[in-house]
Amino acid sequence: MTSSFEDREITVALLGAGTVGAQTGRLLNQTEADLTPRVGARLRLTAVAALDPENPREGIDPAIFTNDAKAVATSGADIVIELMGGIEPARTLILDAIAAGSSVVTANKALLAAHGAELQAAADEAGVDLFFEASVAGAIPLLRPLRESLAGDRVTKVMGIVNGSTNYMLTKMDEEGVTYEEIFDEARALGYLEANASLDIDGHDAAAKAAILAELAFHTQVTIDDVYCEGISQVTADDVRAAQAMGFVIKLLAIAERAPGDAGVIVRVHPTMVPRSHPLASVRLSFNAVFVQAEAADELMFYGRGAGGVPTASAILGDVVVAARNRVTGSIGPSRNVYAELPVLPISEARTRFYVNLDVADRPGVLAAIADAFAQHGVSIQVVRQDGHGDNAGLIVRTHLANEEALERTVAHLRGMDEVKAVLGVMRVEGEAGD
Amino acid sequence: MTSSFEDREITVALLGAGTVGAQTGRLLNQTEADLTPRVGARLRLTAVAALDPENPREGIDPAIFTNDAKAVATSGADIVIELMGGIEPARTLILDAIAAGSSVVTANKALLAAHGAELQAAADEAGVDLFFEASVAGAIPLLRPLRESLAGDRVTKVMGIVNGSTNYMLTKMDEEGVTYEEIFDEARALGYLEANASLDIDGHDAAAKAAILAELAFHTQVTIDDVYCEGISQVTADDVRAAQAMGFVIKLLAIAERAPGDAGVIVRVHPTMVPRSHPLASVRLSFNAVFVQAEAADELMFYGRGAGGVPTASAILGDVVVAARNRVTGSIGPSRNVYAELPVLPISEARTRFYVNLDVADRPGVLAAIADAFAQHGVSIQVVRQDGHGDNAGLIVRTHLANEEALERTVAHLRGMDEVKAVLGVMRVEGEAGD
Repeated sequence: MTSSFEDREITVALLGAGTVGAQTGRLLNQTEADLTPRVGARLRLTAVAALDPENPREGIDPAIFTNDAKAVATSGADIVIELMGGIEPARTLILDAIAAGSSVVTANKALLAAHGAELQAAADEAGVDLFFEASVAGAIPLLRPLRESLAGDRVTKVMGIVNGSTNYMLTKMDEEGVTYEEIFDEARALGYLEANASLDIDGHDAAAKAAILAELAFHTQVTIDDVYCEGISQVTADDVRAAQAMGFVIKLLAIAERAPGDAGVIVRVHPTMVPRSHPLASVRLSFNAVFVQAEAADELMFYGRGAGGVPTASAILGDVVVAARNRVTGSIGPSRNVYAELPVLPISEARTRFYVNLDVADRPGVLAAIADAFAQHGVSIQVVRQDGHGDNAGLIVRTHLANEEALERTVAHLRGMDEVKAVLGVMRVEGEAGD
Repeated sequence: MTSSFEDREITVALLGAGTVGAQTGRLLNQTEADLTPRVGARLRLTAVAALDPENPREGIDPAIFTNDAKAVATSGADIVIELMGGIEPARTLILDAIAAGSSVVTANKALLAAHGAELQAAADEAGVDLFFEASVAGAIPLLRPLRESLAGDRVTKVMGIVNGSTNYMLTKMDEEGVTYEEIFDEARALGYLEANASLDIDGHDAAAKAAILAELAFHTQVTIDDVYCEGISQVTADDVRAAQAMGFVIKLLAIAERAPGDAGVIVRVHPTMVPRSHPLASVRLSFNAVFVQAEAADELMFYGRGAGGVPTASAILGDVVVAARNRVTGSIGPSRNVYAELPVLPISEARTRFYVNLDVADRPGVLAAIADAFAQHGVSIQVVRQDGHGDNAGLIVRTHLANEEALERTVAHLRGMDEVKAVLGVMRVEGEAGD
């Protein structure tokens, strides 16, 4: 610690050399000279584990490639970056690296959402850093602000657009009026969807990120199994038009919030109607954003690229710089091992506003009958909009805050009514003033 | 460091008990129990210096108030929070606190913009933290992400809406069509303007924040005197209408950017036309936001409350928690003392797009003559829009990237032309694709 920058070296080993891994290695080598004064030492990439080590990656010395990931993980590098993805062998290799005294930087959302607490406990035990800024919302600095800048505040709700593929699809449906089926085919053709498209469109990718966000915002252990998850495949052109008519837009949101009465935490992913004036409404195409409500800070939003090799590499390198600086100064970053341990509650405990789109008979008394159905189940109506006549008579209802069960009972009741020809759509609504 | 949380105490002293100071003290006391596990020690507010110490503040023990600021600054508290504002005595008191071994948290933008480097050097010398998250964009976690999360990236441009009062005024001019004079009177009546309104409307407040942003983004010393500054008092209803006609909105932006060829840094504050599809365009009323372009991360934006006692107190408390944790672990945060020392260049080195609004004679050949005037000075026209006929013939020109001097020469030329009855407005344009 008394030596000058040039004498001190921080070694970095990389597990995985796919798109993000290759960009991270290249960017590290390219910016190393700039980073030296910020780190207080030189960063040196010492080893890269890849499935195809003989394939050269631009900007990385071919001689440091190997297919022996175990050897790289246990090499005792100051910092091990894990970018393989998936649960195993990533989990074991990270635990190996921690046991060897390395600080770890990872972007592995699936692993963190399943085993985050175990990895953090191992890192705390070993006195090393475990950083994962890139695991949620790619390049957006988000986890560090949540951990650090809001450390003296109390977060009440987090709402994120954390899956760029589905946001791209919903943006096109909104702006160009294409159907879900049309845009699904386009997104697949453009390579915007994971090989297993269900990870995107059914909300599983967003759910893993929701678990990580919830854990950081509420200092509570949350796994992906705790997250209610509903994708966008049921979003219809009718829903999009109804949202537009009301001045709303549909977004797939990952939401983590304190339950009423502070009884616990509720974490959910589902298509959501958001007012056009809300900051999340203007997040278009493949961009990501996370909106945070905190008691003192009020409303915050963080916006940027959620994916892509280079943007994600930027976030990883930010973590590497902080971890390296901590090695140089002999400190470690704030750990998460202090949990508030709020219970994670099911979505049935949530209270939200709802939109209900009904195809109704065009005759006198229909509105009164429908209003009565809502009232019978204790669901209070905020706005009703009547459109069309005759065979195309439609009714769009937006409710005040209601609980899930009451809404479900209401919808079942509506489906059984003579006056209702069809329930065209039901969706949760967020982001209105007063929520 | 081996003791349990409850045994360890971090003392906090507060200089200044105005709106933000009183809220900070109250919030610290109110959340102290929640913060203990995050800090690893109990936080205790030991002293508050106020001009009126006999006036009680809700949630703060009256017995710890004093009007002896010097005694509070030199009390040797672990952390001294400076919220007095202004240059002196704040500067001397902070230097006193640093000399006494205290870490310092401040929200004093004017002081940082004038003497930031001196204070940082003193803190580095003494091995204590100097944090100032609340000095720019109030509650928005921004400085820490710039210092930490983007530490491995290369920022190319920062554009911020950092003055809520002028953003409120410009939003009302855009959305309600009121004139500058009308909204100025309303903003003053609502108490939205500083006692010296010039600080807001002439851009001085934004310029101080621009200097702090530039320093952090480019690791270069920038003072407020280096910042080109132009306020909103010349923004007319004509400009607002012209912006709307082109799909733009007018914002007062604080901009810091790398000069062409990486020759230095240019820092400027002026009214700016921004496309409606740009994330900054949807930042309404008194909200703040800072948009960042970085080589790897691409586009980022941070949005939230820029002012207000409680939101600002949240940012201050975030800094206090990090500084306190550093005291507990015996480390200090990243310092800024490593400067790249890029030269700060005048705005004449900047290249921007411009909007020029002309009242022209309605006769054949006018457009050709005006296009020729632009061409003579090497300014390339991107879009021309012709409106009206006869006495109300108008021409709105938007240019490609041009330098300030060429534009000035063009405007002087236009003013001297028979075909031009008046130059109604000239404004810089930012945020278009390809910039």
